[in-house]
Amino acid sequence: MDFKSNHHHKNFIDGVPYATVKRLPFYHRFLTDLSKKEVERISSRELAAKMGINPSQLRQDLCYFGSFGQQGYGYRVNDLLREVNRILGLNQEIKMVLVGGGHLGTALANYDNFSRRGFIIKAIFDKNPEVIGGYIKGIPVLDIKELQEYLRVEPVEIGVITTPAEAAQETADRLVQGGVKAIWNFAPVSLKVPEEVLLENMHISESLLLLSFKLKQRRNQPDPV
Amino acid sequence: MDFKSNHHHKNFIDGVPYATVKRLPFYHRFLTDLSKKEVERISSRELAAKMGINPSQLRQDLCYFGSFGQQGYGYRVNDLLREVNRILGLNQEIKMVLVGGGHLGTALANYDNFSRRGFIIKAIFDKNPEVIGGYIKGIPVLDIKELQEYLRVEPVEIGVITTPAEAAQETADRLVQGGVKAIWNFAPVSLKVPEEVLLENMHISESLLLLSFKLKQRRNQPDPV
Repeated sequence: MDFKSNHHHKNFIDGVPYATVKRLPFYHRFLTDLSKKEVERISSRELAAKMGINPSQLRQDLCYFGSFGQQGYGYRVNDLLREVNRILGLNQEIKMVLVGGGHLGTALANYDNFSRRGFIIKAIFDKNPEVIGGYIKGIPVLDIKELQEYLRVEPVEIGVITTPAEAAQETADRLVQGGVKAIWNFAPVSLKVPEEVLLENMHISESLLLLSFKLKQRRNQPDPV
Repeated sequence: MDFKSNHHHKNFIDGVPYATVKRLPFYHRFLTDLSKKEVERISSRELAAKMGINPSQLRQDLCYFGSFGQQGYGYRVNDLLREVNRILGLNQEIKMVLVGGGHLGTALANYDNFSRRGFIIKAIFDKNPEVIGGYIKGIPVLDIKELQEYLRVEPVEIGVITTPAEAAQETADRLVQGGVKAIWNFAPVSLKVPEEVLLENMHISESLLLLSFKLKQRRNQPDPV
């Protein structure tokens, strides 16, 4: 749930509607699931039904990236998955550093999905002497003071922020100085980053507040007669 | 980032545009911040600027819920924050249970924001004998087999799922049988729940895939001349 990244929501990314872009990760999810179940072939109607969208929307989405599948035959699952991986940029290793070795940072470091898809957390940074010098899931935990020097020697593309809110902007500034191309932010703060640095937010608290609103609305509704 | 909750995205919730609903948690965030800084009064122009939206959008959003503030004076921060709390349903305790006492569940249990806003995790459920019988942040960790019986005696509104993907649907079914009104899902799976049960997803992996797509698009762009 991202109400505002630093570029406001451009409705298009390089000519592709943002709604289509937001569905790409879910094409990846459903195709990965089908591939695991060794399903070889699927029609656009079947895949669309699984995703809860209509078939023409699915075909239109994929058309932005090339022509896949055959009329009357549908798609070869593994071929289409390979294409979606390419479209999402998953066919190469993406290096990350994670700032904040607390519970949330530990949870992300333990997320098998990431390394399986080429997202490699190279190092974790923290200011807590109790965790500095240790390892989380085999990843070294270093002193936050070493961040700039580390990034000078070992450039990475994505900086992940799981610090408390009050440390998040300073952390973002240091990551930007260290040359990251993108920030993945879990801190409950609206960060300011330069235009050339991508920003993706995971607003966990706000998601719960949204659910609370929906619950309250349901409570206030008279039961259906 | 929620591509599809179980009701597809109704564009309105009880007559309020979903875009407005999604901004409510961010009004809460910015107003909480202002209140902490003991800012007493703020104009719609200043608040809108902080949020990166235009003032008329802000006024229009708030109009759906009542009339607040005074022309020429702006809003009293604490009054407006109290109203937003009411709108979001935060003026009462909301009981939750959390299924999955792993790293992510531990991170959520340690999220101070939740209890401060009335979201109380009453119990954590897991199948791992090493954690059953223990406590996470003072919250008892119980055997997943006891979930139904627990909910019979201690009904809760929200069930939080942080299990691995393969256990998520079964967990959702048990929570629904136990009478929860809403499910907050962190598992990388599209859950099926009955229409009357609210579903809010936190798709962590998909958020990273979205970032990866944006990074790839940037890489492929020629540097600005």
